[in-house]
Amino acid sequence: MSAISKAMEKLMANSSVLRTMFEEGKQMAVKYGKENVFDFSLGNPSTPTPPEFNDAIRQVLDENDSFSLHSYMSNAGYEETRAAIADDLNKRFGSHYGFKDIAMTVGAANAIVAALKVLTDPGDEVVVFAPYFLEYGNYISNFGAVTTVVPPNPPTFIPDPEEFRNALNERTKAVIINNPNNPTGIVYSEDAIKEIAAVLEEAQKKYGHSIYLITDEPYRELVYDGVQVPFIAGYYRNTLMAYSFSKAMSVPGERIGYLAVSPDADEADRISTGLGIAIRVLGCVNEPSLQQKAIVKVLDKFTDVSVYDTNRKILMAGLDKAGLEYVRPDGAFYLFVKTPTEDDREFSERAKNKYHMLLSPGSAFCCPGYVRIAYCVARDTIERALPLFEQLAEEYR
Amino acid sequence: MSAISKAMEKLMANSSVLRTMFEEGKQMAVKYGKENVFDFSLGNPSTPTPPEFNDAIRQVLDENDSFSLHSYMSNAGYEETRAAIADDLNKRFGSHYGFKDIAMTVGAANAIVAALKVLTDPGDEVVVFAPYFLEYGNYISNFGAVTTVVPPNPPTFIPDPEEFRNALNERTKAVIINNPNNPTGIVYSEDAIKEIAAVLEEAQKKYGHSIYLITDEPYRELVYDGVQVPFIAGYYRNTLMAYSFSKAMSVPGERIGYLAVSPDADEADRISTGLGIAIRVLGCVNEPSLQQKAIVKVLDKFTDVSVYDTNRKILMAGLDKAGLEYVRPDGAFYLFVKTPTEDDREFSERAKNKYHMLLSPGSAFCCPGYVRIAYCVARDTIERALPLFEQLAEEYR
Repeated sequence: MSAISKAMEKLMANSSVLRTMFEEGKQMAVKYGKENVFDFSLGNPSTPTPPEFNDAIRQVLDENDSFSLHSYMSNAGYEETRAAIADDLNKRFGSHYGFKDIAMTVGAANAIVAALKVLTDPGDEVVVFAPYFLEYGNYISNFGAVTTVVPPNPPTFIPDPEEFRNALNERTKAVIINNPNNPTGIVYSEDAIKEIAAVLEEAQKKYGHSIYLITDEPYRELVYDGVQVPFIAGYYRNTLMAYSFSKAMSVPGERIGYLAVSPDADEADRISTGLGIAIRVLGCVNEPSLQQKAIVKVLDKFTDVSVYDTNRKILMAGLDKAGLEYVRPDGAFYLFVKTPTEDDREFSERAKNKYHMLLSPGSAFCCPGYVRIAYCVARDTIERALPLFEQLAEEYR
Repeated sequence: MSAISKAMEKLMANSSVLRTMFEEGKQMAVKYGKENVFDFSLGNPSTPTPPEFNDAIRQVLDENDSFSLHSYMSNAGYEETRAAIADDLNKRFGSHYGFKDIAMTVGAANAIVAALKVLTDPGDEVVVFAPYFLEYGNYISNFGAVTTVVPPNPPTFIPDPEEFRNALNERTKAVIINNPNNPTGIVYSEDAIKEIAAVLEEAQKKYGHSIYLITDEPYRELVYDGVQVPFIAGYYRNTLMAYSFSKAMSVPGERIGYLAVSPDADEADRISTGLGIAIRVLGCVNEPSLQQKAIVKVLDKFTDVSVYDTNRKILMAGLDKAGLEYVRPDGAFYLFVKTPTEDDREFSERAKNKYHMLLSPGSAFCCPGYVRIAYCVARDTIERALPLFEQLAEEYR
């Protein structure tokens, strides 16, 4: 018998393609020189953190004594932090969250895991829309629930209501959507959200129980061309919003996020109580104190999104020139390119081995035939990569 | 159908007695005045954080640019942090950890949960020794494993080898011990550790697979009267040590800990690989960066343990005078008092309602007939509580 659990053996065998690429990229940079490797594989923000964030940490250190700063607090976090986030959301989105509806978590990922801990038993089903961040499946299986995948709907990648309807059944406890979307960079329009909400309302009636919509929204602030991201909880009552400051503030290593339970959701207060318990029994106990105290001082500070927008435009122009098709991205810092062969893994391998370009295969998002370019890199990296994209595309003509 | 999972419903019904007391204590403080409530319920450190910790945070902010400080890193943490912790352990305990054997986690609790994620499948068994921190049971059930409790062994509370042996079987994947111990305050002697190791070695042979000893050691630095805490990995190969800086450095809210996989353990490298994945799929992704960068600058800085020692001595003298029996504590900041009635909950309720003293019932640690006093409080609180202990004891004579 192996020491490792069967569940972990499976995870180890399917270890994250993206993380593996991240490690490979680091090795290639050592081997070929950093400037000769074009790593478009990971969503690691490339714009600096607003300096006010570090200032906020310094202020927190100056303003607090040892006990008010470093002690245990409630598992869901400081009331002041939760209230400030609720107020900020209410001001921006016309919502009416109270502090009790906000649970501070170790990033959005941990918020989703905590929500799943509250909602799911073994055998319950959670629906995701392909292409999707494969980690969702691992989050879902933590507690024995099962992932149901709605197939991709190219070329728009807006979920098809009929396919969505077919994925729902009496075991469905939750649905996860990611908006703006990783890996496509699309932003679900108001109409798309209304359709998702309508299908969910219908399914709730049909199956006689609440189905929660967990919205993963770390890219909420990263949008271009004036596109508006719909406030999903405004369209569907049973919405649990997972947010992270990782991308908008370029602090992914600091793990600052929260889950916002819509106060209009069924059993909202019991879910919030459950979240505190989930955070505790996952061993996190609470979102680290320093981060909680600092973040409320900079809720209106974002990284410079125009940098990503410039990258996006240069990249789109270059791909157009190379004759590569892609989904036009309105948000996040990803661009989803149709591979000129059906075998996206072969395309990705060729890009890596011949051109030292790391592109994540669409298969890693349950959507073969595409590759994802994470354009959160230096502008210069994109500019120097454009001729390589042309050469790569040329090989398939 | 309730929105809440059956597993969470159970957790909500049995919500932590200790956390509930913590909340009750806060309410009583408002009602009766802070100075009139004697809250001995929670292990929230009462000695200040060494000032070098905050200095280290400031240095980290000054020394790093935005990317080297706030970005993603490997799921197990920065190599520098892990290497520094490995070196520190090796210097102190003659071990030979490398950076790869250390995984940075969101406190010791999260380290234990990550270890269980690596080791256990539904139906696997994990053994704990009563009295024990009931959260262990919740950590274990996260992934469907089952808790097996070795009954308490008063008055020493050193595990009885025969009872321990009886708790092991072919489904046993791990054993959790906590040394120095919460709630008893005892420190397992070298002989006790040797006996535990011998039983485990025998069981490994008998059942033909590795059984891992997860040692929960956040109180390692809090010991008195020159007592030595045995370095358990030196006595048993398959040891996974969970550590937190929470207690020794009075930073429980900052959630800084790690799991150290003994390099001599069976499948040590695969366990370490699994830990990185576990940290990722639990949604933590990584221990927050600021804390990781800061902690390595202050590995030799501890809070002033003599403050707890003074509290301990005053409390022991007072309990002696009140004629209450207790287990003599050599470590941590807990004292386990035998209740003069079998009904520890009644005793605890009486203490709370009549004397405004919050004492955790032993039942909350799977050990009725005792109450736990957490003496990590102001010395003055203890001094003023001593007459109340006398009056309380008097009621049972």
